Amino acid sequence: AALSRQIQSSAAAAVAGREALRQAVVNTLERRLFYIPSFKIYRGVAGLFDYGPPGCAVKSNVLAFWRQHFVLEEGMLEVDCPCVTPEVVLKASGHVDKFTDLMVKDEKTGTCYRADHLIKDFCKEKLEKDAALLPPEKAAEFQHVLAVLDDLSPEEMGAKIKEYGITAPDTKNPLSDPYPFNLMFQTSIGPSGLSPGYMRPETAQGIFVNFKDLYYYNGNKLPFAAAQIGQAFRNEISPRQGLLRVREFTLAEIEHFVDPEDKSHPKFGDVADLEFLMFPREEQLTGKSAVKKKLGEAVSKGTINNETLGYFIGRVYLFLTQLGIDKDRLRFRQHLPNEMAHYAADCWDAEIECSYGWIECVGIADRSAYDLRAHSEKSGVPLVAHEKFPEPREVEKLVITPSKKELGLAFKGNQKMVIEAFEAMKETEALEMKVALESKGEVEFHVCTLNKSVTIKKNMVSISMEKKKEHQRVFTPSVIEPSFGIGRIIYCLFEHCFYQRPSKAEDEQLNVFRFPPLVAPIKCTVFPLVKIEKFDVVAKKISKALTTAGISHIIDITGTSIGKRYARTDEIGVPLAITVDSTTSVTIRDRDSKEQIRVDIEEVASVVKEVTDGQSTWADVMWRYPTHAVSHTDEEPADEE
Amino acid sequence: AALSRQIQSSAAAAVAGREALRQAVVNTLERRLFYIPSFKIYRGVAGLFDYGPPGCAVKSNVLAFWRQHFVLEEGMLEVDCPCVTPEVVLKASGHVDKFTDLMVKDEKTGTCYRADHLIKDFCKEKLEKDAALLPPEKAAEFQHVLAVLDDLSPEEMGAKIKEYGITAPDTKNPLSDPYPFNLMFQTSIGPSGLSPGYMRPETAQGIFVNFKDLYYYNGNKLPFAAAQIGQAFRNEISPRQGLLRVREFTLAEIEHFVDPEDKSHPKFGDVADLEFLMFPREEQLTGKSAVKKKLGEAVSKGTINNETLGYFIGRVYLFLTQLGIDKDRLRFRQHLPNEMAHYAADCWDAEIECSYGWIECVGIADRSAYDLRAHSEKSGVPLVAHEKFPEPREVEKLVITPSKKELGLAFKGNQKMVIEAFEAMKETEALEMKVALESKGEVEFHVCTLNKSVTIKKNMVSISMEKKKEHQRVFTPSVIEPSFGIGRIIYCLFEHCFYQRPSKAEDEQLNVFRFPPLVAPIKCTVFPLVKIEKFDVVAKKISKALTTAGISHIIDITGTSIGKRYARTDEIGVPLAITVDSTTSVTIRDRDSKEQIRVDIEEVASVVKEVTDGQSTWADVMWRYPTHAVSHTDEEPADEE
Repeated sequence: AALSRQIQSSAAAAVAGREALRQAVVNTLERRLFYIPSFKIYRGVAGLFDYGPPGCAVKSNVLAFWRQHFVLEEGMLEVDCPCVTPEVVLKASGHVDKFTDLMVKDEKTGTCYRADHLIKDFCKEKLEKDAALLPPEKAAEFQHVLAVLDDLSPEEMGAKIKEYGITAPDTKNPLSDPYPFNLMFQTSIGPSGLSPGYMRPETAQGIFVNFKDLYYYNGNKLPFAAAQIGQAFRNEISPRQGLLRVREFTLAEIEHFVDPEDKSHPKFGDVADLEFLMFPREEQLTGKSAVKKKLGEAVSKGTINNETLGYFIGRVYLFLTQLGIDKDRLRFRQHLPNEMAHYAADCWDAEIECSYGWIECVGIADRSAYDLRAHSEKSGVPLVAHEKFPEPREVEKLVITPSKKELGLAFKGNQKMVIEAFEAMKETEALEMKVALESKGEVEFHVCTLNKSVTIKKNMVSISMEKKKEHQRVFTPSVIEPSFGIGRIIYCLFEHCFYQRPSKAEDEQLNVFRFPPLVAPIKCTVFPLVKIEKFDVVAKKISKALTTAGISHIIDITGTSIGKRYARTDEIGVPLAITVDSTTSVTIRDRDSKEQIRVDIEEVASVVKEVTDGQSTWADVMWRYPTHAVSHTDEEPADEE
Repeated sequence: AALSRQIQSSAAAAVAGREALRQAVVNTLERRLFYIPSFKIYRGVAGLFDYGPPGCAVKSNVLAFWRQHFVLEEGMLEVDCPCVTPEVVLKASGHVDKFTDLMVKDEKTGTCYRADHLIKDFCKEKLEKDAALLPPEKAAEFQHVLAVLDDLSPEEMGAKIKEYGITAPDTKNPLSDPYPFNLMFQTSIGPSGLSPGYMRPETAQGIFVNFKDLYYYNGNKLPFAAAQIGQAFRNEISPRQGLLRVREFTLAEIEHFVDPEDKSHPKFGDVADLEFLMFPREEQLTGKSAVKKKLGEAVSKGTINNETLGYFIGRVYLFLTQLGIDKDRLRFRQHLPNEMAHYAADCWDAEIECSYGWIECVGIADRSAYDLRAHSEKSGVPLVAHEKFPEPREVEKLVITPSKKELGLAFKGNQKMVIEAFEAMKETEALEMKVALESKGEVEFHVCTLNKSVTIKKNMVSISMEKKKEHQRVFTPSVIEPSFGIGRIIYCLFEHCFYQRPSKAEDEQLNVFRFPPLVAPIKCTVFPLVKIEKFDVVAKKISKALTTAGISHIIDITGTSIGKRYARTDEIGVPLAITVDSTTSVTIRDRDSKEQIRVDIEEVASVVKEVTDGQSTWADVMWRYPTHAVSHTDEEPADEE
């Protein structure tokens, strides 16, 4: 008991530490307007946030880098489809029927809760707070419930809520039975009220429905990838986790279409030597931790299903770490069989560790042919690829010819379902039926859609293997989908880039975001050391040169001490600060090392461009210019605000 | 009659010419996937379009340039707010009550039409087709109806529909009376069904509600501008005009906040000398045409209300013409008094002429303090600015003190309206009332909200001028709003950049988009002249160098003739084409002049970058490299597709 109490208290300390960090980060983010709760003057709306000026700049830098790293480097076909989506599309994709969470209502006030959240909170509280008193078999039960929570049916969740006596958190009122709530924002297209539509829950469907045109655009060749960046929507029942679970967010999605019989990737060699944290199914099921593995090995040993999937995992790793995500808090976790859709061949999530735990930020899934097939069926437009043979091939093909007359007489209105069941037979089943019909004259045949077996007689269907010449292979491509939650990546980036350092003058902590220049919202600030006209003139001249070079910057001409001004720009993660202290040369200060160099006014813009474009590092330019003796520095006391 | 028939037929020819151009442009755009009707495999949804790969690239280039030209150059505060908006915000802005179009329904089928469209079509048809037979007074009436159409009430439109016997266009069934239909897509936020929300009809409101934070972020200083790029939605009754009137579109909006007493602009001098087509109110009302004017003069003469408005008009002119909009088909049209909201100080539209006529693409409005006041009132949060005086000022201030007791006795429930009417009085009115009350003891006072006059007695209100010391001025800033319809600008750009040139080999016309490199979807193509390995190796090497330089490009290795391949990339507006015809140097061809130069392989990427970044023109590089004799050219016959 003493040991368990000790574990408990060190776990509690870790939780408290994480929450303190989160509080410091979120305070800085909100105070410096990286984020603003949307419609704040009207008391806001849960799950909706604005990006203020620095947040918006970080976001557009992240998206620009995404375009460079994926769309441009891989020659992807980028598209831009509307958010408003007619019902038929989302019916085909399965979202109308299945994009739901289970909800319970406070029976008196009508307040809604997610059923799984309440059960999860209950189990976690028991495990954390009552740990010392909990009999081991009870603890094991709660652990088990947490593990299988996502798989529980409405009835099973309802039973758990009753069994544990869970009530509404705010009022302690009894709760309704759980029932599914569709998470799409619904609307109506046009004035008639007869065309239901939804705000898209993902951008992928816009790509799938355009497959035919995009395949043609690509010269009718596979593989190719299409990409889309845009808003997506999810009408959460009760948003939690601040900036991580929101009702509107930016997705960046790639749909890479590939021949299911050849998922090799010509550029896999470029990433095969990357080594990083992976958390395969095997390790999860045996209670082990994530392990460092070489990507090439993970693919050759079959841990990762195929080269194309592996290639994208590698590219995602490079993308995230180049943005500034800490590689030790990034892992690729494979989905367990129960997490994965039945059609998926394999699926890995890039998870980033932050104060909320390990957060899924990118999903990389081999969705096989599911989506294209679903839209082919619903729309009647074949979404397929063709492989022309150099010369025709002779193939044996199963031909099933139903006799509509006989079937009609026997099954009347059910005839259609029987014919569809014939068509759905696998080759082996069909051949078995052929043998049975030939030997016995009739056979029992189960028709799923009728939910019963019917008797098929010999005259109702003819089954044969015929030789045919084929000129091409027609097939539905597989799709490998890397899908990026941009807002989540940005939030984790904020936590990973944040640190505090002491101010010498006072006991306060100074906040710093160590953004790489690539994502920094502003690349450089310009400070005249003191408020005199000749320094202002120089500052404006430098500003003009920076604008011409396309470098975002701000001039801070407030009379505040230089130390205070440095602290201000450190807090929004500006990599370089230029202090104008003479009319011929100025100092440039590096945010993280606080080192300073002295550079001629004419050269300033090009030095800043070099470093913020990533052509040179700070260390590179440090060698080329004289170091500036620390005379106007961070060490000065902060005076007024 | 003969003359009028002649005018009619030349007008008809012009219409036919415009429609032929549009058909050619739209065919090219759809065939090359600049646009795709959204959800095409499900037969589409009127008013929704996708940008396919080249369209999407043009759009992101336009937006990147917008950010550079406005946000970066002017140091604007960019924000990014959600599309989902709670009702209270759009109630305050007036959209819930007034963002409507008048609709009529086919009384039998229920099909909906815009009432003004039906009347407009009727009048136009009469004026165009029946011109020869139309008595002059009838013609004048139809002209008049067209001019005032936007101002007609539902009842007046209903009367016109009855008078003209207008029926449903498709069925000739009778129509319902016109009634307002709100154009916002409605939805519901959260699971309760009790929080109505809308998809935003503009991005501006997200900025207004954040004014307080943004003002603080800007160091509590005016003027400053905030900007936002994002999706906006408009649930059109029956979308027409193809790509110009759609149900979802991208807006880029700027809200420039300024002291209403000082609308000068420090950088106005930079644009004062620009000279371009303006169409002031005066010219429109006297039946004249748009005239070329200097911007500086238009502001100094008061044609344009103030410098800040003028500055943005100039910046918009530069933006559009640098994108490739033809300056002779661009005009700035001032709103007529009846078009402008009552609170607006002045308003100009950048209109671009295309095959649909003159299209409003950017609105530049001085909206005075309307929006901030509306949100202050509704939210109770003061959205104001402060000007601190260097030393306190003594001011005379009107003080109106209503006597609630006397007013309550006299007006009971109407008391509130009377007090509000007191508060709304201008200084002169209040002083007149003071004089009247002192001399006559009572006065008749019109109360708008009661829609009648009431008698005010001396004991009901005290009015006086009092001296006060003021330390600061508190005021609601004015806002000057340039609002860009990005999709409309892009469509007009497509028409302005499109031309056809003859193919020598055949009688067909070749389509070309003369996009400036800035907006071209792909900057360069690489063609190996013939399919041999050593040329492929060179092509790949060049491709790698282009990727490193961040230049979007495609390699076309199909065996098609070089002429055909040039034609293909001309059709999507690629400025430069590289043909690999040796292993040491290659040719670079300019799209519009078809001139070719020969450049060493090592230098190719940097030459392409120079031209497509805009550092050099084609003419500049032409001088530096040997001209390539036309051996593999456009002149070759096009062979297969």
